[in-house]
Amino acid sequence: MKSNLSPLAPKADQDTVRRHNLSLVLRAVHDEGESTRAGVAARVGLTRAAVSSLVEQLLEGGFLTESGKTFSGQAGRPGTVLKPSRTGAAGVGVEINVDYVTVCVVDLTGTDRVRLTERLDNRGAPPAEVLARAARIASHALDSARQQELRPAGVTLALPGLVAGGTVRQAPNLGWNGVAADALFAQALAEYPNTPSLPVSSENEANLAALAELWFGGPGEARTFLYLSGEIGVGGALVLNGELLRGAHGFAGEIGHVPLDPAGPACRCGARGCLEQYAGQSALLRGAGIDEDAGAAGVAELERRAAAGDERALAALGTAGVMLGRVLAGAVNLVDPEAVVLGGVYRALAPWLSPPAEAELAARVVSGLWPHDSGRLRASSLAGDAARGAAALVVEAVLDDPARWAQGAGAE
Amino acid sequence: MKSNLSPLAPKADQDTVRRHNLSLVLRAVHDEGESTRAGVAARVGLTRAAVSSLVEQLLEGGFLTESGKTFSGQAGRPGTVLKPSRTGAAGVGVEINVDYVTVCVVDLTGTDRVRLTERLDNRGAPPAEVLARAARIASHALDSARQQELRPAGVTLALPGLVAGGTVRQAPNLGWNGVAADALFAQALAEYPNTPSLPVSSENEANLAALAELWFGGPGEARTFLYLSGEIGVGGALVLNGELLRGAHGFAGEIGHVPLDPAGPACRCGARGCLEQYAGQSALLRGAGIDEDAGAAGVAELERRAAAGDERALAALGTAGVMLGRVLAGAVNLVDPEAVVLGGVYRALAPWLSPPAEAELAARVVSGLWPHDSGRLRASSLAGDAARGAAALVVEAVLDDPARWAQGAGAE
Repeated sequence: MKSNLSPLAPKADQDTVRRHNLSLVLRAVHDEGESTRAGVAARVGLTRAAVSSLVEQLLEGGFLTESGKTFSGQAGRPGTVLKPSRTGAAGVGVEINVDYVTVCVVDLTGTDRVRLTERLDNRGAPPAEVLARAARIASHALDSARQQELRPAGVTLALPGLVAGGTVRQAPNLGWNGVAADALFAQALAEYPNTPSLPVSSENEANLAALAELWFGGPGEARTFLYLSGEIGVGGALVLNGELLRGAHGFAGEIGHVPLDPAGPACRCGARGCLEQYAGQSALLRGAGIDEDAGAAGVAELERRAAAGDERALAALGTAGVMLGRVLAGAVNLVDPEAVVLGGVYRALAPWLSPPAEAELAARVVSGLWPHDSGRLRASSLAGDAARGAAALVVEAVLDDPARWAQGAGAE
Repeated sequence: MKSNLSPLAPKADQDTVRRHNLSLVLRAVHDEGESTRAGVAARVGLTRAAVSSLVEQLLEGGFLTESGKTFSGQAGRPGTVLKPSRTGAAGVGVEINVDYVTVCVVDLTGTDRVRLTERLDNRGAPPAEVLARAARIASHALDSARQQELRPAGVTLALPGLVAGGTVRQAPNLGWNGVAADALFAQALAEYPNTPSLPVSSENEANLAALAELWFGGPGEARTFLYLSGEIGVGGALVLNGELLRGAHGFAGEIGHVPLDPAGPACRCGARGCLEQYAGQSALLRGAGIDEDAGAAGVAELERRAAAGDERALAALGTAGVMLGRVLAGAVNLVDPEAVVLGGVYRALAPWLSPPAEAELAARVVSGLWPHDSGRLRASSLAGDAARGAAALVVEAVLDDPARWAQGAGAE
């Protein structure tokens, strides 16, 4: 068959290959933190000449920077050091939760360059007003980003609810139903004269926290894991082979509403006996004899009492841990993840939640696949926060197709 | 940036592109059933010249056939009709179950060309003996395939258990633990002098039945679905965006061991109150007052009694349906599939299992995402069988990289 081989280079395909290769080179430098042209060529399997041409385009587009000093850790002749640029393209994440808004700007190196949090009560306020508050806070963060010569490529909103196609179908703790969050936020942001016009998208907060855990959780992280976010609601997300599972409607991961007891307490979702009713923040606080509306202070108090050996606190955490373990066993049998990560308020409470949950997993996961000392149920890293994940999602889109973003870079 | 664009054609990359494009063209013809060079070019976005060169290679390799008659359904000048070849590369599937072995040979068009089933009792026999029986049956099927000028590219074994890396970790209904199925089967097959030496791999039967449902279930099929296989065990599989989820260890989909009642009846898996204990074949037959070891005849009797309105049969099916619905609601909240497909013995029993299961789903899936008349819980098509899925998995590997298989085609 060899004699039949002819070079295939139709125009459309070549452009696709070029854009793909631009992304490949940018990611190679991004993933290493720094590299040389020779280092990149070795990593991606392209010729040195091809890599040099791609690197020139990435330098010109402001995606990479080059420093004069040589780099001799690599085989062959030393070259100038390439790094992802700390100016230029960046991502903006805006987390809107029950009692705070956090805006975060992340650059191409993955560094959190601006972070602005305001504590405020978003319950009861009309959605448009909450989104206007968020836009005001974002406008401040965008000013700071501009000072640092960052040019945001887009905004992702992180929201505690079922989100798809720019609309929040349901966010019970905010009291939102059918809110066109993307459009309302973009409109509110446009009121600020100095802010650029940016594409806005929305995503569930647990999904974004899980992505932040994936991207920033440090080396050795699992690529297939189930992420639980304990808050007033119990959110969740599934990361499979390094990709977030969105599901048919964008609503995958709702582990808080896996039924535990068909005749159990009524849940906000309309069903009965959901996990959230046994292991959500309110159930935990109530079980420990703490005001269930005490929020973050209540969780801190629960942690303090548990550490002091308070029996009621320990019992509440023990029950929640068993219920978590039972639901997790079913989820592990279904999805076979490498790890289960406990985030949100569960992060601090993991020392008490994990042992009973591990015992349930060891007893109920098929074929001894979850041994007692597996270490596969673990607290999230500090990196796993939704605002950073939201900003990084924009950065990922830039890394995926820098050519596309270079074209739009003059939008400001 | 335009002036910086230079053609990227390092050797390694070009070969990758060529192999990718060969697959693209073969799949284009395969997916359409038949096409012309012009039709393929329009579909895949390559030039007519590039497609012609690729088609020549595929004709020469025996993957496509060309017929003299013209085809005028396409715009432009009529051309000769291209079809996937009905001779040459093929896949072999071998399903080994408790009371039968089925061998199936599928050609590049997806057609089931040989099917051979023997009813025999595989319980109690040593694994090596069961695999030797299967090899004997496969050798007959391979003879038939050779008569039809088919050249199998490999064998996939479909097994009712946890399978990974060629080994059956656990298949409780066969009584297998830690059986090196691939190696034992290959060794047994090598005893037959006229059979080619073929690569052998193994996969869980529910996974393969789900793939058969995906590939052969007809147009309009869901690409993201949960597949349940009701047998003595309750198997399952998750197909996400047209791909099977294997999980970290290859054991995803074990929905039969999602816990329903922590204090429920002991399950073969070592835990208590698993779905299998309420909705497996034995529980169904026992509940209806039928001998739980009656196998296929018992299931037929259950169906007959239910159709006749027998109260005990209806009650057993009603309970199983509720339990199925409860576990499915949790799984749907977690994964958000487009559909849930009931296979195995559930296919025939779906008229009685579905209504109670649908009611649980409607009550327990978040945010009204599973309305009562959704039609998203449905019986599998007849196509969804594990042996055919196993054979088609080999064919898929050929479609993915025909160049690789062309090189090995002289192995016979």
